[in-house]
Amino acid sequence: MSYVLGHNQYGKAEIHVVRVFRDDASAPHDLVDYNVSVSLTGDFADAHITGDQAKVLTTDACKNTVNSFAKEAGEAVREPESFGLALANHFVDDVPQVSGARIIIEAFPWQRAHGHPHAFVKNGDYVRTATVTKNAAGTTVVSGLKELTVLKTTDSEFHGFYQDRYTTLQPTNDRIMATAVTAQWAHEGVDVQWAESFAAVKDAITSSFAKAYSYALQATLWEMGTAVLDAASDVSEIRFSCPNKHHFVLDLSPFGVENNCEVHHADDRPYGLIEATIKRSEDVDATGAYDPGQAW
Amino acid sequence: MSYVLGHNQYGKAEIHVVRVFRDDASAPHDLVDYNVSVSLTGDFADAHITGDQAKVLTTDACKNTVNSFAKEAGEAVREPESFGLALANHFVDDVPQVSGARIIIEAFPWQRAHGHPHAFVKNGDYVRTATVTKNAAGTTVVSGLKELTVLKTTDSEFHGFYQDRYTTLQPTNDRIMATAVTAQWAHEGVDVQWAESFAAVKDAITSSFAKAYSYALQATLWEMGTAVLDAASDVSEIRFSCPNKHHFVLDLSPFGVENNCEVHHADDRPYGLIEATIKRSEDVDATGAYDPGQAW
Amino acid sequence: MSYVLGHNQYGKAEIHVVRVFRDDASAPHDLVDYNVSVSLTGDFADAHITGDQAKVLTTDACKNTVNSFAKEAGEAVREPESFGLALANHFVDDVPQVSGARIIIEAFPWQRAHGHPHAFVKNGDYVRTATVTKNAAGTTVVSGLKELTVLKTTDSEFHGFYQDRYTTLQPTNDRIMATAVTAQWAHEGVDVQWAESFAAVKDAITSSFAKAYSYALQATLWEMGTAVLDAASDVSEIRFSCPNKHHFVLDLSPFGVENNCEVHHADDRPYGLIEATIKRSEDVDATGAYDPGQAW
Amino acid sequence: MSYVLGHNQYGKAEIHVVRVFRDDASAPHDLVDYNVSVSLTGDFADAHITGDQAKVLTTDACKNTVNSFAKEAGEAVREPESFGLALANHFVDDVPQVSGARIIIEAFPWQRAHGHPHAFVKNGDYVRTATVTKNAAGTTVVSGLKELTVLKTTDSEFHGFYQDRYTTLQPTNDRIMATAVTAQWAHEGVDVQWAESFAAVKDAITSSFAKAYSYALQATLWEMGTAVLDAASDVSEIRFSCPNKHHFVLDLSPFGVENNCEVHHADDRPYGLIEATIKRSEDVDATGAYDPGQAW
Repeated sequence: MSYVLGHNQYGKAEIHVVRVFRDDASAPHDLVDYNVSVSLTGDFADAHITGDQAKVLTTDACKNTVNSFAKEAGEAVREPESFGLALANHFVDDVPQVSGARIIIEAFPWQRAHGHPHAFVKNGDYVRTATVTKNAAGTTVVSGLKELTVLKTTDSEFHGFYQDRYTTLQPTNDRIMATAVTAQWAHEGVDVQWAESFAAVKDAITSSFAKAYSYALQATLWEMGTAVLDAASDVSEIRFSCPNKHHFVLDLSPFGVENNCEVHHADDRPYGLIEATIKRSEDVDATGAYDPGQAW
Repeated sequence: MSYVLGHNQYGKAEIHVVRVFRDDASAPHDLVDYNVSVSLTGDFADAHITGDQAKVLTTDACKNTVNSFAKEAGEAVREPESFGLALANHFVDDVPQVSGARIIIEAFPWQRAHGHPHAFVKNGDYVRTATVTKNAAGTTVVSGLKELTVLKTTDSEFHGFYQDRYTTLQPTNDRIMATAVTAQWAHEGVDVQWAESFAAVKDAITSSFAKAYSYALQATLWEMGTAVLDAASDVSEIRFSCPNKHHFVLDLSPFGVENNCEVHHADDRPYGLIEATIKRSEDVDATGAYDPGQAW
Repeated sequence: MSYVLGHNQYGKAEIHVVRVFRDDASAPHDLVDYNVSVSLTGDFADAHITGDQAKVLTTDACKNTVNSFAKEAGEAVREPESFGLALANHFVDDVPQVSGARIIIEAFPWQRAHGHPHAFVKNGDYVRTATVTKNAAGTTVVSGLKELTVLKTTDSEFHGFYQDRYTTLQPTNDRIMATAVTAQWAHEGVDVQWAESFAAVKDAITSSFAKAYSYALQATLWEMGTAVLDAASDVSEIRFSCPNKHHFVLDLSPFGVENNCEVHHADDRPYGLIEATIKRSEDVDATGAYDPGQAW
Repeated sequence: MSYVLGHNQYGKAEIHVVRVFRDDASAPHDLVDYNVSVSLTGDFADAHITGDQAKVLTTDACKNTVNSFAKEAGEAVREPESFGLALANHFVDDVPQVSGARIIIEAFPWQRAHGHPHAFVKNGDYVRTATVTKNAAGTTVVSGLKELTVLKTTDSEFHGFYQDRYTTLQPTNDRIMATAVTAQWAHEGVDVQWAESFAAVKDAITSSFAKAYSYALQATLWEMGTAVLDAASDVSEIRFSCPNKHHFVLDLSPFGVENNCEVHHADDRPYGLIEATIKRSEDVDATGAYDPGQAW
């Protein structure tokens, strides 16, 4: 009957705020489009066990803070990492009973429509992400992207693999390789040019995917990860979670039609799921910088 | 007890086929990525009422046909409209008991990665669609797009509207306007340059959205529709279904922060839904060319 | 240049309103959980062509109306059909420039938790739907359900079908049949006991699915449709749209394992899609009562 | 350039297998419906760094194994936890280069249709989950459920909370409380009656939610967690992740309509997200038993 409250955290999730930069009437407008989630840790046992809410900053106030900071934080609002840092600093520094804050941001990119000063088209190629954590152990920043779908129509093999009694797959020397990249990378320090760093990492991922001859998705992850570490000196490690989006060559021979790796079924499920971390050195351990969801 | 079988149709839905064009070993590869749905009508009462399947072309054969045609149909495979025409003609012309076919295609665009000859990045800005219908009334083609999300940060008003006892909305002279465009347009005839026509329509939609000063989303639909009819002489009418993606200006005054149309809450639901048809003339009636779903 | 405005409609979509019935302090609470969409037609050409909004009832007022009617409409709120009728009557009768209204409601069922007077668990087995249309042609009501997933592990065959050059499917005398039922049915008149009618139709669908030996999903639709017309005299016709949720028997023989219709792969896409209307007589024509989406 | 491969894992995700139990021709059929994901760790550096796949058990073989075990594993197939144990034991014990396996299963419940021996209706009220992990540290089992949506129309307060400059929320003594429960709980040992344990936990969650007078969602999580530990002696800790599904009382006073906590807007985003662990004692530390996704 005398049970124990273990790890707990709370906050407001998915605060969808759009900030327009329009101070200068003669300049083109800019905007950022963020989906912000706040998680707080601290002295909140009473809220659970006795029902006393005296130390609870309401999740409604978390929402108000994010919205107000979208103006108050000034230039820091322009990049998700700097916006997350401003928010994490506020919650930990200004609310006494809060000892830790994790800010997770999805940033949706927009591109100018036909060069117009205030019209935009949403860029659906990827979603940019950021996770900022501040607690007794310090402050960490993880950048990321997801839903970046890439495909190569050749220069991909898969053979020479282990055989057990359940192995029926045929080896191949030519196949489509496709994946939707989810990647997150940890920075050393918080004094980074966030926009430039993100652009360098994203470019390294797509260009190394394009260039690398692939012997397996695992090998491609290694190629992409090392290219990122080459391109961005502020990145200490990168973690990938990449589904192998299977494109199966269809057998058209019953219909008298040749199929030279041309016609494929894009299958939904199941899919291979390949996950790997590539680190700058053995000393790197950024685990605490990521959000593990329910498995904290 | 003597009930009647009314309208019925059947087929295979969501055949996800990816075709690579790689005949010329020295040329860059191309690909198309289609999600194809086939609906057939005809002499299928027995399949329902007596359980006799003798006239039923299996949905599995529909799938095989689509996959095989992704090679057999040659250059027609390159555009969803011409691929749909090849399929509709086959089902109606070659299967005696089929009197009508409707082919619906979602085409997912890809762009070359860093100019690479066989690496691609998925373009998530929109999905292209096509609906081809062939039956006793003739053959019709509807092109379309969806999930094209556009936003303007100013040059949008909404005021002077009707007042009833449930009207509490305040008029505004400056607001964000945003929508995710779903549009479908009917062609006169089937002898159209599909790629060029699609590009012209898409360009007319985004450029007129950017340029038009807006007095309501209804007015913007009219601007976009007339721009499309100006730009593509093969289009007889266009139908829009556009959610008003509300961006509400947040009241930051309780926190002592000014908000000059800068910080907005991007709301999910409910949303205004504005739908309109713009036609070249009163004589145009393309209703039979569209797929009405369950309401056939 | 002198283009024409064709069919147009507008309104507020997905107004998610939850109404609690708690007037009697000593009685258990009840609740309804509705997602309401309103579409209006009428004299709205100016809103598009000249930008004059003087006749436009704002979509915000549509939302306010739905929310206020969730109290004002009294007992009519308890069933989606009667709630839709109250709303459609209001918009057409009380707003002069509105000549037609279509109200579409998704109703999410809840069940009492452990018999508790005010605690509930969401019943995720299905979503109930209603479409009420009022215009110059009269008033119609369509009831429906969706996401009702049913499966039988035997008593399902499929053979004796048509053979063309793309037919490779093997006939079977024993297979899993499964579908997620989407059904909509039109009523004769608007003076119906909505709760009782819905319960009778839903019961007829699941019990006839269970009992009928199936020669094809088409035949099962006919069985379910005729059972509904037997069970509910107020229903004039029913329309089904049913995916064949394929469960493929897996070949386990490479692993030395017998598979007697026991182990199946539940596939996602593609899927057969079978759609049919079963009517009380040839005279029934309820097409105008359904919402055809963009294909009006 | 000499970078390091950190933690990595791979496998096949979302193998959707449906097993029918029909051995006894005179008995009613049963079925289980599982979505299985396999993750393996071990000696896989070469697959990444040199491209040598000699030690890689293909993800296709993982799929075949799951499918074959759906028959081979006999009675263990009937519960997700015992099925997961059979699979984890196989991969670690029988494949030399595999040192760790994590099996994650979603189990979709079905209920018999009208008592019929082989017809079923999908029970959409919740999804059951299981995570089985076997590695050098031992074998652990986590059970869970998700998408169990509960609501109470009264007996819920929220007041007395902390005030900062961003706090504008009004306290309340009567409100709707609703959440979609995601919970996972760790077992002591692997010798558990899985079906009985799951039923006891699920019942404890819904009945304690119904009974507990709530001072905050945090307090309700504590009530539910302690009820689970009371009800299931094999459970060492339970972790909740519960969105506060906000139901805002609508202001109908502009329309002259009283609203006594009767009419609510069910909002989508943002939402409070409350997460907590309740443990049997301070000594419990089950962190390694859960799957943290990308944050391993």
